[in-house]
Amino acid sequence: MFVSNSLGITDGHLTLGGVDTVLMAEKFGTPLYLFDEDRIRENCRNYVSAMREHYGNGTVAYASKAFLCAEMAKVMNEEGMSLDVVSGGEIYTALKAAFPASRMFFHGNNKTHDELELAVDCGVGRIVVDGLEEAESLNNMAGRVGKKVAVLMRITPGIDAHTHSFIKTGQIDSKFGVTLENGDALRSVGSVLKMENLELKGFHCHIGSQIFETEPFAHAADVMIDFMCAVRSTYSVELHELDLGGGFGIRYTSEQNRAEYGEYVKAICEALKRKCAEVKYELPYLIIEPGRSIVGEAGITLYTVGRVKSIPGVRTYVSVDGGMTDNPRYALYKSPYEACIANKADNDRDFVVTIAGKCCESGDLIQENCNIQRPEPGDILAVFSTGAYNYSMSSNYNRICRPAAVFLRNGEPRVVIRRETYQDIVKNDVLK
Amino acid sequence: MFVSNSLGITDGHLTLGGVDTVLMAEKFGTPLYLFDEDRIRENCRNYVSAMREHYGNGTVAYASKAFLCAEMAKVMNEEGMSLDVVSGGEIYTALKAAFPASRMFFHGNNKTHDELELAVDCGVGRIVVDGLEEAESLNNMAGRVGKKVAVLMRITPGIDAHTHSFIKTGQIDSKFGVTLENGDALRSVGSVLKMENLELKGFHCHIGSQIFETEPFAHAADVMIDFMCAVRSTYSVELHELDLGGGFGIRYTSEQNRAEYGEYVKAICEALKRKCAEVKYELPYLIIEPGRSIVGEAGITLYTVGRVKSIPGVRTYVSVDGGMTDNPRYALYKSPYEACIANKADNDRDFVVTIAGKCCESGDLIQENCNIQRPEPGDILAVFSTGAYNYSMSSNYNRICRPAAVFLRNGEPRVVIRRETYQDIVKNDVLK
Repeated sequence: MFVSNSLGITDGHLTLGGVDTVLMAEKFGTPLYLFDEDRIRENCRNYVSAMREHYGNGTVAYASKAFLCAEMAKVMNEEGMSLDVVSGGEIYTALKAAFPASRMFFHGNNKTHDELELAVDCGVGRIVVDGLEEAESLNNMAGRVGKKVAVLMRITPGIDAHTHSFIKTGQIDSKFGVTLENGDALRSVGSVLKMENLELKGFHCHIGSQIFETEPFAHAADVMIDFMCAVRSTYSVELHELDLGGGFGIRYTSEQNRAEYGEYVKAICEALKRKCAEVKYELPYLIIEPGRSIVGEAGITLYTVGRVKSIPGVRTYVSVDGGMTDNPRYALYKSPYEACIANKADNDRDFVVTIAGKCCESGDLIQENCNIQRPEPGDILAVFSTGAYNYSMSSNYNRICRPAAVFLRNGEPRVVIRRETYQDIVKNDVLK
Repeated sequence: MFVSNSLGITDGHLTLGGVDTVLMAEKFGTPLYLFDEDRIRENCRNYVSAMREHYGNGTVAYASKAFLCAEMAKVMNEEGMSLDVVSGGEIYTALKAAFPASRMFFHGNNKTHDELELAVDCGVGRIVVDGLEEAESLNNMAGRVGKKVAVLMRITPGIDAHTHSFIKTGQIDSKFGVTLENGDALRSVGSVLKMENLELKGFHCHIGSQIFETEPFAHAADVMIDFMCAVRSTYSVELHELDLGGGFGIRYTSEQNRAEYGEYVKAICEALKRKCAEVKYELPYLIIEPGRSIVGEAGITLYTVGRVKSIPGVRTYVSVDGGMTDNPRYALYKSPYEACIANKADNDRDFVVTIAGKCCESGDLIQENCNIQRPEPGDILAVFSTGAYNYSMSSNYNRICRPAAVFLRNGEPRVVIRRETYQDIVKNDVLK
């Protein structure tokens, strides 16, 4: 019935992780990001155990960009996850939670000098160099501080995972990585192998986002092992780490079908084992990087319904007390979402509405043509599958304060990010 | 040559307001929002003096959502502007700068109870009620605190200003206002006139954004006066305030031609005078609300060029140290921008590149197919016309710190918004 099995109904109220969401809205106010922490942990365990069962020699790195705060980093650490970080801010946050730098993978198409310095200083486990120029700066930097830095190199494998063009990253036309097809990648490896302060451990690729099929991942494994064979035959060196990124699809709507995440892992591992046996390559240490699939379906956003504006023959706008400030994904990608009135969860969702935010902008919509229960001012509206890329992409447009985030564990809520205040909004304003 | 006449070249360096932008990048770091404050003030004066010359009886309200910080509110106050605010956060910011609440116009399709309370408490000059339900809550609230609250009512006039569907707001299908065509607006006026704690002063409409023609504004004036005549004949009351909103186009590219802003004001005022004479309606107090056109062309963003990735036969990506975090408008609307290498401003802009940000997302582009000088790592890249809706829509995606904002007045820079720090990023994280 619901898009995520974290959701349920008790006494006519929507529940998340068994907790009454209407009570949570009362207790913490709206808008509110609410997460089923038990589900987040279960998702981690499913990935980790599938990796153990089907492969043994690897790690699961949580892609922080989906949702990160200090407490989230702590939870990831407790679950034995590694961490995929993409900025100094993410590294800083994880360190704040005592996440071991050695288990971090630092990605990014344009890391700044300061960020690279921070990563080298704190001992980030693997820096994923995105190109030769970055490798050169990093080599110089490592030399100056007398360190040998372990790196992976990001390869653009030329795989089109048939997804939204904004979130497809494996194809040749990409700001990321070094290009495989035209020989750039192979040439760059030669140069990096000569850099005396870098230790090239292996390769990374990422083929896209919201991928529902297992084949593209298996295909990526094939392509990357072929590349590693080319490296072996060209430079007589066998590298033993392979980071295949993430991109495992989640359910935003009931029509979207996805495999269990263990199945993606299984498909990748089997493809890898088959391919390595075929070309006689020692099985590399495998890294995968789920983000959205760890946290996306585990999170919902709660709003209070304000104005309900029915325009006969046109549509009904239901305005909520948040909007593109806390969820810009409809404005950016026309992302689908399902929703329900949390305090009327037993009723039929037989009203078709457009959910609008409170920003002074017509494009500030959360969803068009969305089926919910008959809405009235004061209702609590829950939008599902908002755990990933909602808080992380949130803004203060219109100087609106960002919502609090609350984790639910064993039925108990705790605030992991405090609600912003007007004082926060002006704190960096300088008045002469 | 440049899209804005705030820009120039001295000794091969790009200047803004006569100031060397390369020096500014060195002094304050990048990314940096840099504003020609003299131009901002001149824009205000042009509007204010055109209003005085062509009409006399009115005010120019700056639409804060385009760009607001405490210092900006102070500058607007010094220039004799009124202020269009759309949230409690904007009111709070303006009050911080001692902007008189009496000169604020409070808009919004879904103001919260707390926001309305703040507005009533501090004595916001006009609350622009967006619908009957809001008028009712406000009437109750005003009654409880024993105040009479002056309001305008927002009307959706059914004018399609032929612009991007995301930023066109006057048509019937809008989350804003009460609908004119179907009689809702006229009926609502009757109800509001009976509310004893509200004083209905007049009406507001806003027909869209980035409008280059003067006709739609003149047309809006016509439609609104017709409506005010209908109110007069139905309820025997003549209301004397008319807020025609904003939406005056700015130049993002050299191909975009716009009239001088005085011309828009003149067209509106003449249409209004003609129409009022025709239907024998006393000339109302006129409010117009420019935002983008006050600040948009006066601002640029400075970045440091990082990786330059040429993919032969495909394109060249120039990655900068910011991106969709400080300017999400290309990702949101495919907005056009022009750019140049500030430290090579004399050279021909004969390289076609894609300007990419540093976010871990393929859609993080600032512009595709953009002509700039030959880029190299370390260059300072200036993107033009970023004064409006860039800082205001910025985010901490990837936990990236937001840039500082610097005003240039009489050749002197001063920081008006401090650069965010990693400490700022984690300040609301709660670690158990």
